[in-house]
Amino acid sequence: MKRLFVNAHILTMREKDTLLEHAYLVTEDNCITEVGQGDPPVVYDEILDMKGKLLLPGFINTHGHAAMTLLRGYADDLPLKTWLEEKMWPIEGRFGPEQVRWGTALAMVEMIRGGTTCFADMYDHMDQVGALVADAGMRASLCRGVIGLGSQTEREAKRREAVQFAQQWHREANGRITTMMAPHAPYTCPPAYIESIVSDAERLHLPIHIHLSETRREVEQNVQDYGKRPVAHLDQLGVFHRPALVAHAVHVTEDEIQLLAERGVKVSHNPGSNLKLASGIAPVLAMLKKGIRPSLGTDGAASNNNLDLLEEIRLAALIHKGVGEDPEAIPAETALAMGTRFGAEALFLEEEIGTLEPGKKADFVTMDISRAHWQPTHDLLSHVVYSASAADVQDVYVDGRPLMRNRELLTLDEERIRWETIRAFEKVSP
Amino acid sequence: MKRLFVNAHILTMREKDTLLEHAYLVTEDNCITEVGQGDPPVVYDEILDMKGKLLLPGFINTHGHAAMTLLRGYADDLPLKTWLEEKMWPIEGRFGPEQVRWGTALAMVEMIRGGTTCFADMYDHMDQVGALVADAGMRASLCRGVIGLGSQTEREAKRREAVQFAQQWHREANGRITTMMAPHAPYTCPPAYIESIVSDAERLHLPIHIHLSETRREVEQNVQDYGKRPVAHLDQLGVFHRPALVAHAVHVTEDEIQLLAERGVKVSHNPGSNLKLASGIAPVLAMLKKGIRPSLGTDGAASNNNLDLLEEIRLAALIHKGVGEDPEAIPAETALAMGTRFGAEALFLEEEIGTLEPGKKADFVTMDISRAHWQPTHDLLSHVVYSASAADVQDVYVDGRPLMRNRELLTLDEERIRWETIRAFEKVSP
Ligand SMILES: [Zn+2]
Ligand SMILES: [Zn+2]
Repeated sequence: MKRLFVNAHILTMREKDTLLEHAYLVTEDNCITEVGQGDPPVVYDEILDMKGKLLLPGFINTHGHAAMTLLRGYADDLPLKTWLEEKMWPIEGRFGPEQVRWGTALAMVEMIRGGTTCFADMYDHMDQVGALVADAGMRASLCRGVIGLGSQTEREAKRREAVQFAQQWHREANGRITTMMAPHAPYTCPPAYIESIVSDAERLHLPIHIHLSETRREVEQNVQDYGKRPVAHLDQLGVFHRPALVAHAVHVTEDEIQLLAERGVKVSHNPGSNLKLASGIAPVLAMLKKGIRPSLGTDGAASNNNLDLLEEIRLAALIHKGVGEDPEAIPAETALAMGTRFGAEALFLEEEIGTLEPGKKADFVTMDISRAHWQPTHDLLSHVVYSASAADVQDVYVDGRPLMRNRELLTLDEERIRWETIRAFEKVSP
Repeated sequence: MKRLFVNAHILTMREKDTLLEHAYLVTEDNCITEVGQGDPPVVYDEILDMKGKLLLPGFINTHGHAAMTLLRGYADDLPLKTWLEEKMWPIEGRFGPEQVRWGTALAMVEMIRGGTTCFADMYDHMDQVGALVADAGMRASLCRGVIGLGSQTEREAKRREAVQFAQQWHREANGRITTMMAPHAPYTCPPAYIESIVSDAERLHLPIHIHLSETRREVEQNVQDYGKRPVAHLDQLGVFHRPALVAHAVHVTEDEIQLLAERGVKVSHNPGSNLKLASGIAPVLAMLKKGIRPSLGTDGAASNNNLDLLEEIRLAALIHKGVGEDPEAIPAETALAMGTRFGAEALFLEEEIGTLEPGKKADFVTMDISRAHWQPTHDLLSHVVYSASAADVQDVYVDGRPLMRNRELLTLDEERIRWETIRAFEKVSP
């Protein structure tokens, strides 16, 4: 199947020549085969007129817990300890496959509608998530997040489950699903447990996805418990000797950033969640200076409260300017790269996605640039970052397959998902 | 004309009993006459089924320069001085009535589409703005912003123009337009000029709208030039002895906040613009503690880059939590009050708008709560603040008149405005 998209403005998100005006893009099956200006090819199976639309790479959400959409707005504006221990954990403890299935389906509706084509997910009952991703046509990096707080038997059962999931689903769904191993966090996993998961990851040739230094408190706790800060601790346990992705990295020192950069560790910056939970502001500027290319994540919808990656892109572009009183911090192009190209790198998929160029997978979205808040069209990249809305996304393609056209979802039954989500929540509601 | 809105969820934004589920609202001509639950009245001219919609007060944008939509994305990510002196001022200097007319029309399209029913505007060629507001049916607090940097003759001409505009338009358009006097800022107006404008305001019984302590630099300059910080300076010039609204107030000390609170000065917090221009983070939490009820503004689209007040509400709810590492800072209800009830107070319109209750003007909007990012509907107020999008706004009523229904604009020709905006910009383009 050869599709030709004509009359488009295209943001390729390559490092140079990002914007192509009045351009065309060709996909063959699941790949991009041409991106150019001038006369488009004359042989194709389908031609689509993109007049009034901007084509850009799909957004990549590098950290989240999709099923937590069930808890959107369930508890807000509380101290973290109360929120987690009195609100989140008790109800999440009652989640079964059904809650994960429908919560994740709802998340996927929201993500596709907002232009996200690929997401990282760390949760439980991950077979449900794998099956949904396969059916709905998204791309995802999945991991069974394991907490090592139970008995030895429980812990080992979880670890086996995580290994089995990672083996079974890696490169499934035409290669759209990849997997990682995920010890939840240094404060929820004893050191030996983390080490054993690192050796699993090594054996399976898989990267590691872990929460790191989200709050000041957990850093202090780590020092108390293990005599060192989390970065040195995880480095010693071998985590950073594997390809690794860390979520948050809010409370990291210059030296820690230096070590993360040296080890090639990927970072998922989650500004919305970090602000809402009052964790603080991650030193993204310092990371960029040391050569880390941070990606963006929404985290779960209980702490965000949406899965709008464009909002994270905008927050990344805005908050570091304001907090550092530096108008040149995180310019628009860097912020958009964080949501696309750097996101692909964070999920170890930079060979496949993150930019629009021949040879890459056909994962892209279109946005309606005719709306009032896009006028005048002085600078389309600036408009995406500083003015656009997730609701401007019109079409979503993943692996060359349309998942949404003119805002109509083609692979998910939104009406039913809404209904089943409510039922699934009611079954665990206190 | 009596309109009955049934089957709605209503956020009245009164201090107590904010949310009424399965409720109705009645408007007669330009006023709300009933808000309640149970059996609605049986006599009416029009009945509207609000199933699946949330009714809430229209958003109030208390600081902006609407015509600057023409410069959206025209210059970004630059040091303030370069941005202002090399980019903004030269092109704004070429603006005439035509640029102001179409830039403002574009702004009004965007504001209505995003649920803003009332806005403050400080600019030049304000007759254009007044005429547009009258026609389009919005509510607005308008002022001719005057800069006192030219010759004595120029300055006095501007001042006369501002007085004439304020007199002519105050309480025009069925009372929807009110006016203020607006010395632009302490750093652009000599002290004697500000004093003469204060006496104009006194004579006309009008409030004052002025920029205050947006950047660290202008505060230092004020100390150098006048031996005191801007708050004391303006207080001495009599500004705060009139009803007054100050925009930004980013760099204000505890003592200055105390004085502003004592004088009953209103504040327009502009988080998006302050972040983007890297001005800093206004101490909103300290203001709330001292009894100031800050409102929200977008500022001009050249520094935002949209006029989405919901985005400002969300930023207000998020950034102060993150920066202060305090999850209870600016809870959702306070943030939404800043965009509605406190906004009405800031524009001295609290008797007329800001909440939905009998006797108030019928200024309200509806949002589609059936969408994925509103599910499950655990907490509708939280969803407005933390998850919703301006694109969820479906209907907009001002003074009882529909300006948008099911996203169709009823008083503005969007297609033509888009076209004319481009032409108007081209005429001044360098
Ligand atoms: Zn997380
Ligand atoms: Zn301003």
